[in-house]
Amino acid sequence: MSQTEQQLLETLSWRYATKQFDPSRKIPDATWEVLRKAASLSPSSFGLEPYRLVDVRDPAKREALRQAAWNQSQVTDASHFVVFAVEVPFGVAQIDAFMARTVAQRGVAPESLAAYRAMMVGTLVEGPRAQKIHTWSSNQAYIVLGNLMAAAAQLGVDSCPLEGLDPVKFDEILGLKEKGLATVCALPLGYRLATDKYASLPKVRKPLGELFLEI
Amino acid sequence: MSQTEQQLLETLSWRYATKQFDPSRKIPDATWEVLRKAASLSPSSFGLEPYRLVDVRDPAKREALRQAAWNQSQVTDASHFVVFAVEVPFGVAQIDAFMARTVAQRGVAPESLAAYRAMMVGTLVEGPRAQKIHTWSSNQAYIVLGNLMAAAAQLGVDSCPLEGLDPVKFDEILGLKEKGLATVCALPLGYRLATDKYASLPKVRKPLGELFLEI
Repeated sequence: MSQTEQQLLETLSWRYATKQFDPSRKIPDATWEVLRKAASLSPSSFGLEPYRLVDVRDPAKREALRQAAWNQSQVTDASHFVVFAVEVPFGVAQIDAFMARTVAQRGVAPESLAAYRAMMVGTLVEGPRAQKIHTWSSNQAYIVLGNLMAAAAQLGVDSCPLEGLDPVKFDEILGLKEKGLATVCALPLGYRLATDKYASLPKVRKPLGELFLEI
Repeated sequence: MSQTEQQLLETLSWRYATKQFDPSRKIPDATWEVLRKAASLSPSSFGLEPYRLVDVRDPAKREALRQAAWNQSQVTDASHFVVFAVEVPFGVAQIDAFMARTVAQRGVAPESLAAYRAMMVGTLVEGPRAQKIHTWSSNQAYIVLGNLMAAAAQLGVDSCPLEGLDPVKFDEILGLKEKGLATVCALPLGYRLATDKYASLPKVRKPLGELFLEI
């Protein structure tokens, strides 16, 4: 096994759903900026990024969110707490914002994108996927979630995906509805406490032959 | 920026949704085994892994899948083609299989897990999430998808997430329904062709200040 391959598996094995964060340890600003960029480099369907990552800094809001998340200590104890929220409703305005980004960042003529725009509007806004648009956008948020956890682990930063939360209360506490956003899941990031017994438990996984199915 | 941080961002920037794979280049078996392990190390809700990764080797099936995926060349041209399928229905049997894995892999007594089991059955099978269980399980599959794309990039392996496919036809072609599985998305993996013009296009992304929202 190459050194890169070994490091990859060691990093992913080191990662675990951190239960106890060290409240005294903060992610340095420079490291956080790298993680923000890593999240931004995540792929998404058509590149639309139908989500925002809410970086909750306000301690009072963190405390309120903790109450809306089964009082899980990670919400307040982790260095950073990111709420993954999808854009609602997702429609033509979001697609046109993407078009504008493409024109600006690739230097192409808007007319050259007309067919691509029509295809996206057709499939996402008017087509069969429109009925499941919230599932589609939350799926995209989960790609970022997976990517960000892997990136954090590479930098020695712990995390813990949180789905056990009340999304409606989260939206209220953070004022997301007014911003056209809806909570999907959350990710505290920081550094594990040495006493967190979950760090050393063997991972429970399907054997590779059960996870993978060769056809 | 540390060397690790720099490498992380270079790797994620190198990744792009590969449109043209080199059909002559195959992922070595040893590399593929590392990627399988990387996928297995992905986190999932409660550790339940409510999915399987279908590694389609049969060229005739790959050709049929391509027809059910808008004739996208990656389906047949990439070295490997993985279909992400979730377990349906997801119920007590899947939770009990996880219980058995936990007992075997952590060496704990089944009785010690009774409360944990009851909580999972309560929330996933009998509780409010039962109505959205397919969204929940597909979300978990997308975490693996994000993680696997990041791991592949680290090893210099290209990929391209595919949602533009007919999941019902995929299930038929692969006989997944009889196996209690349902297609969610797919990922061809392999090596880009030097002529793929998409490799060098600048990535279109929300500025960091639009992707992140500080509160």
